[in-house]
Amino acid sequence: MSAPKKVVLAYSGGLDTSIILKWLQVEYGCEVATFTADLGQGEELDPARKKAEMLGIKPENIFIEDLREEFVRDFVFPMFRANAQYEGLYLLGTSIARPLISKRLVEIAAETGADAVSHGATGKGNDQVRFELSAYALNPEIKVIAPWREWDLGSRTKLLEFAEAHQIPIAKDKRGEAPFSVDANLLHTSSEGKVLEDPAEEAPDYVYQRTVHPEDAPDTPEYIEIEFERGDAVAINGERMSPATILTELNEYGRKHGVGRLDLVEGRFVGMKSRGIYETPGGTILLDAHRGIESITLDRMQIHLKDELMPRYAEMIYNGFWYSPEREMLQAAIDKSQEHVTGTVRMKLYKGLARVVARWSDHSLYSEEQVTFEEDMGAYDQSDAQGFIQLQGLRLRLLARRDKRFN
Amino acid sequence: MSAPKKVVLAYSGGLDTSIILKWLQVEYGCEVATFTADLGQGEELDPARKKAEMLGIKPENIFIEDLREEFVRDFVFPMFRANAQYEGLYLLGTSIARPLISKRLVEIAAETGADAVSHGATGKGNDQVRFELSAYALNPEIKVIAPWREWDLGSRTKLLEFAEAHQIPIAKDKRGEAPFSVDANLLHTSSEGKVLEDPAEEAPDYVYQRTVHPEDAPDTPEYIEIEFERGDAVAINGERMSPATILTELNEYGRKHGVGRLDLVEGRFVGMKSRGIYETPGGTILLDAHRGIESITLDRMQIHLKDELMPRYAEMIYNGFWYSPEREMLQAAIDKSQEHVTGTVRMKLYKGLARVVARWSDHSLYSEEQVTFEEDMGAYDQSDAQGFIQLQGLRLRLLARRDKRFN
Amino acid sequence: MSAPKKVVLAYSGGLDTSIILKWLQVEYGCEVATFTADLGQGEELDPARKKAEMLGIKPENIFIEDLREEFVRDFVFPMFRANAQYEGLYLLGTSIARPLISKRLVEIAAETGADAVSHGATGKGNDQVRFELSAYALNPEIKVIAPWREWDLGSRTKLLEFAEAHQIPIAKDKRGEAPFSVDANLLHTSSEGKVLEDPAEEAPDYVYQRTVHPEDAPDTPEYIEIEFERGDAVAINGERMSPATILTELNEYGRKHGVGRLDLVEGRFVGMKSRGIYETPGGTILLDAHRGIESITLDRMQIHLKDELMPRYAEMIYNGFWYSPEREMLQAAIDKSQEHVTGTVRMKLYKGLARVVARWSDHSLYSEEQVTFEEDMGAYDQSDAQGFIQLQGLRLRLLARRDKRFN
Amino acid sequence: MSAPKKVVLAYSGGLDTSIILKWLQVEYGCEVATFTADLGQGEELDPARKKAEMLGIKPENIFIEDLREEFVRDFVFPMFRANAQYEGLYLLGTSIARPLISKRLVEIAAETGADAVSHGATGKGNDQVRFELSAYALNPEIKVIAPWREWDLGSRTKLLEFAEAHQIPIAKDKRGEAPFSVDANLLHTSSEGKVLEDPAEEAPDYVYQRTVHPEDAPDTPEYIEIEFERGDAVAINGERMSPATILTELNEYGRKHGVGRLDLVEGRFVGMKSRGIYETPGGTILLDAHRGIESITLDRMQIHLKDELMPRYAEMIYNGFWYSPEREMLQAAIDKSQEHVTGTVRMKLYKGLARVVARWSDHSLYSEEQVTFEEDMGAYDQSDAQGFIQLQGLRLRLLARRDKRFN
Repeated sequence: MSAPKKVVLAYSGGLDTSIILKWLQVEYGCEVATFTADLGQGEELDPARKKAEMLGIKPENIFIEDLREEFVRDFVFPMFRANAQYEGLYLLGTSIARPLISKRLVEIAAETGADAVSHGATGKGNDQVRFELSAYALNPEIKVIAPWREWDLGSRTKLLEFAEAHQIPIAKDKRGEAPFSVDANLLHTSSEGKVLEDPAEEAPDYVYQRTVHPEDAPDTPEYIEIEFERGDAVAINGERMSPATILTELNEYGRKHGVGRLDLVEGRFVGMKSRGIYETPGGTILLDAHRGIESITLDRMQIHLKDELMPRYAEMIYNGFWYSPEREMLQAAIDKSQEHVTGTVRMKLYKGLARVVARWSDHSLYSEEQVTFEEDMGAYDQSDAQGFIQLQGLRLRLLARRDKRFN
Repeated sequence: MSAPKKVVLAYSGGLDTSIILKWLQVEYGCEVATFTADLGQGEELDPARKKAEMLGIKPENIFIEDLREEFVRDFVFPMFRANAQYEGLYLLGTSIARPLISKRLVEIAAETGADAVSHGATGKGNDQVRFELSAYALNPEIKVIAPWREWDLGSRTKLLEFAEAHQIPIAKDKRGEAPFSVDANLLHTSSEGKVLEDPAEEAPDYVYQRTVHPEDAPDTPEYIEIEFERGDAVAINGERMSPATILTELNEYGRKHGVGRLDLVEGRFVGMKSRGIYETPGGTILLDAHRGIESITLDRMQIHLKDELMPRYAEMIYNGFWYSPEREMLQAAIDKSQEHVTGTVRMKLYKGLARVVARWSDHSLYSEEQVTFEEDMGAYDQSDAQGFIQLQGLRLRLLARRDKRFN
Repeated sequence: MSAPKKVVLAYSGGLDTSIILKWLQVEYGCEVATFTADLGQGEELDPARKKAEMLGIKPENIFIEDLREEFVRDFVFPMFRANAQYEGLYLLGTSIARPLISKRLVEIAAETGADAVSHGATGKGNDQVRFELSAYALNPEIKVIAPWREWDLGSRTKLLEFAEAHQIPIAKDKRGEAPFSVDANLLHTSSEGKVLEDPAEEAPDYVYQRTVHPEDAPDTPEYIEIEFERGDAVAINGERMSPATILTELNEYGRKHGVGRLDLVEGRFVGMKSRGIYETPGGTILLDAHRGIESITLDRMQIHLKDELMPRYAEMIYNGFWYSPEREMLQAAIDKSQEHVTGTVRMKLYKGLARVVARWSDHSLYSEEQVTFEEDMGAYDQSDAQGFIQLQGLRLRLLARRDKRFN
Repeated sequence: MSAPKKVVLAYSGGLDTSIILKWLQVEYGCEVATFTADLGQGEELDPARKKAEMLGIKPENIFIEDLREEFVRDFVFPMFRANAQYEGLYLLGTSIARPLISKRLVEIAAETGADAVSHGATGKGNDQVRFELSAYALNPEIKVIAPWREWDLGSRTKLLEFAEAHQIPIAKDKRGEAPFSVDANLLHTSSEGKVLEDPAEEAPDYVYQRTVHPEDAPDTPEYIEIEFERGDAVAINGERMSPATILTELNEYGRKHGVGRLDLVEGRFVGMKSRGIYETPGGTILLDAHRGIESITLDRMQIHLKDELMPRYAEMIYNGFWYSPEREMLQAAIDKSQEHVTGTVRMKLYKGLARVVARWSDHSLYSEEQVTFEEDMGAYDQSDAQGFIQLQGLRLRLLARRDKRFN
């Protein structure tokens, strides 16, 4: 790879990416543009602009954007249509944000004449894969610079020395090492590393930052109603809201009631297992609510097919293949199924639990007439079951005649 | 089908199966044997013997058996190795009991020279299918009599008239109709019908019988440790127990903390949707614990493959195909994966929530050395990620060169 | 089911459906409309009109239609996009025709004020299921009359007696029984029953009607080029043709070279196995050609995902679930994959074999630059493979350290 | 990676691996052991011993072994139980041989105190991945040396210069470059590269080396009968043979009749597409025969499940994951299904075609009694189909009432 001439850096304004910014300037002598996105991580973006300017970035090369609506509308919601959970539990909060950041990096590179993009993900994690596969899928000629895989600043001491040598201000609380590493956006907060590295030890309480402890949550349950249209949440308690607003509201409900904590050991795409603490307050409510509305608006064979495709779909997103033709194929199938996923779910929130307790829809396939224990006035002919069972059983009887397999 | 000469009836001792017993005698003029099993439903079995005798069944034709250990060891535990959940949520508590009952019915038929078996499941539900497919798979020549599909006693009034006409005692509280229908065994209690038939109405509190209301559960969390060997739970808090004892204990922990309530609309095999309230206190803890121990002892590709196969496996059990060659195939794959699923999980129980908070195993694949944020002394070469990503991305770049699909 | 007032019958003009026509009139005293479709079965349709008139059907109730283009365009081609083969081999020639016939039956019923449809499929086969599920999916209130499951004309003798009693003319060659049963349309001819019922006996030569014996095919191979656009064949040897014309042409090529014979024992949806002889001359060529063009225009993960979904998709069509939401979901995924399946394949036809020998496309993902054994001028960096393999192998090494599983 | 002390080289005796042998000695100054296996590639192994000795390998470090029986029994046959075909067509002849070679390399390393293994696969292909993943799965501490990814002998000229400089004899016909590259073993011969690199050009006739041209095959068809036991072929025409002997015999039948040629563009694991010419004469016959015997001895749901799992299983083998826990899981499922796959298939061979024409088995599930067009004496009750269809259709009717989706 030839040296880059201009690089667009995913820039948080924090110490690490500031060091990367400077390192890119020093190492490659190239121009740097910075991209800072509001994905709902809950941090001010203005300081990132000032810091970038201080580090010598020209104003026209500083990009600060609020992507929350795009994030929820075009990434989170499509993923929730699939009820995606990686390894049965993880709601993919980090994984789903990376493709959007890469997309903007590549677009800004095109706008500003840059030939490279750069990110602050390490060489051991999944995020490097997600950033880079997304970038290559969007621009096959783009260069990607991953400083953590290149430089020799592998220890905290060396990083701080580099920062000092290059006049990068170091906040007092950044001198020492954080006891764990955090990633946050509108969907979730994840924590990993350091004090969390022994999966046989319960995570300390202070790790949880996004939700109250269930023990501290209100002693009274709270009910909310979530309305869906074609698979996406559109209103809470009757009030229509934009996608990002809905997720923000659900986050607040979840936070208050201690909903959405997960302590997980998962298998990374790069080969080893890691342990993470995830807090996905709104997403956890949303997943259950979505399953709830699907339960009355989808046919059972749609549900079963979705359930079978889901683990693969989740794996694709986890592994960084959002921008892949196979993810698009599954998305087409999933979206096709959502045409009638319209209706309302009532959830009960209480001390960490979010449970569906009622659901209704104009598109419901539930037929009280069919299922009733009462007289159904001929809606269902019980004698049909006789033939149904006989033919379902025919092959089992042929098998049994042959080989008495279960005796 | 020619008339049966002798029938083995799945007999609970209750009013409905007593009416069936008499109806079989009256309708077919045939000898009846009764089979009453303790599957952990929490009812005395002795009254069933007395009632059968009173209805004229010969002592040698009365079979009363405690099947709890067999139920958990040979049915529940193999199913939990798969983390089976039907439509994402239902733990299959009713479905998994039916094959065992059918197995004993067919075996008792062989022992007593009966040519038919009979059950009390209605023509609208899944249970008829499960009973009968299991019976046919075990004995292809067996006759199955399903009185609810045959007789004209479709209303409560007619049933009571028949009972009175045939001197079947009717307990006072059975005169009126139950407000909902219940099925229970060591794994779960399910409730459905009548007051539950409108899925837009929250289930009344009195429906829940097996677990305390989370609001009434202890205000202090409780921790338990569950130990697994080759995928099956073998000890709680260091004390080894038999399979049924373990599930019984877990049920008590779950009951006390309000764990395992589910309000679900599900798709029945016979074609319509139904709404059920499930309480699976011990099973809910067990499922999470099992996933927890798998998270460190299974390779990620085993987990992903299991997750993809699981919905089909669950569907097979739900639909009544326990005794089918396709279920055996999946079981072989699942059991193969469990060879190293040995270790211990710590769970935190609190007001309806059961969460894994720690897990450890001599068979762990988690490598702190590999994953650490600290210096790893060469355990992992971050530069390998470069080549990994390049080759993973090659096909995406070839696609992007061709069709700029995401732009 | 209340008695039908007017029935639309799928009418071939042959003896069996003529008997059904009369039986409907006699049994139900109802008006009958006939629907006769040209699906490429190679029979004149005019005699069907005359015969219907002779049996008393009013002209406005006689529907005779050429559906060949719709059949290929909307049913055969979408199915071929999936490379569908049931049980690995069967190209679903009969299965795919049934939904179209049912669709027109239901539509004609709506047009003519009929409340029922009827077909001539027997109670042992798959076709009854396909006809009826399609009808119910299109009109949930339609009645379906399946005379073979209702009447007592189960033997040849009784049928002929009924025909004679009702002045239905019997062609001389229909007096005796056919040595096997045939279904034909533009996609295939299938033969089954009677002389074919012993799967241990090779099918007699005279069963094959649609293709020359490979031994009698030309001694010189012939080449053809098939051009595809978005997954569908659009031209042969450079000449653009309509869907039905293309299949007709391919049939002629296949017939001449003895391509597309299959002797198969398959598992029917109704539970037993049957043996069929299938001749699918054009379809066999088309399947291989389609795979050929996909091999250069689809990404490998699209191919693999399609291959995994295909058996399920084929099963849906075989079982009669063309008009189901789960088939639509898979179709959406499949169709999404076909956007770039555009290009040309050259096939070599010779004595029963149809082999792809060359393929090219403006949408090709094949990169000679990448794959070449020659110097590739840096298109591919072989050292990337080192990191790729290391990370792919990491989990295997962690497993090996734990359990030496393969030693 | 520290320098190896002793290396076991997969050594063919040819020029390329002789250069590698010398290069290992020169580059690493380490001891080399050679391993040459007879996998049925059809070459003399004695010259490999002489050449190794000439290049200075000590006799106790020269390993020459006939692995044909192990290859077929433990690798080819288990794979054929799955009917494995990569991307629908490729019988995995090269892929399945690599794990066995790696296994012996690793075992010989253990026996001879070597700390590394080496192979002659290039950095662009799949074989490097297969060799190395297999080695790591069997010995996580083994070093793997892949000279083609390390050295600077990338051109033919440099290789020959190196050979001359180190007194490696160069056969006259190796001076020029081969027009394509070949890999062969008992299962297949593959050819790729050079003259085959344009997939739009038909492969020249001289590329095919293992089978006669169909045009030159006998003008008279030949029949053979293949007998299976538990999924594996055990006899031909009534004569029992060892696994390798059976495959050898089938190869001869296939060769003679021009069976098993395939011209394929496939997706490599390392990311690009390549074009190969495969000749798998015996394997092609075996695959069809195995499907044939399965068609009467497996239940249809076993066949369908196998068909759905197969593409993934084939992908695992293609990608080098033979020694992986996920392949073992699928193998367990597949092997479970083969318990009754016992019986005989008759095949007709003629000018490139191998077709099943008859099959029989004591374990057959085919029931002429059930399927017959004749009177079946009550074996099957056609009226059962009514209920079967009604309940299968119920969900479709509920859907249709809701959304008229197909109108």
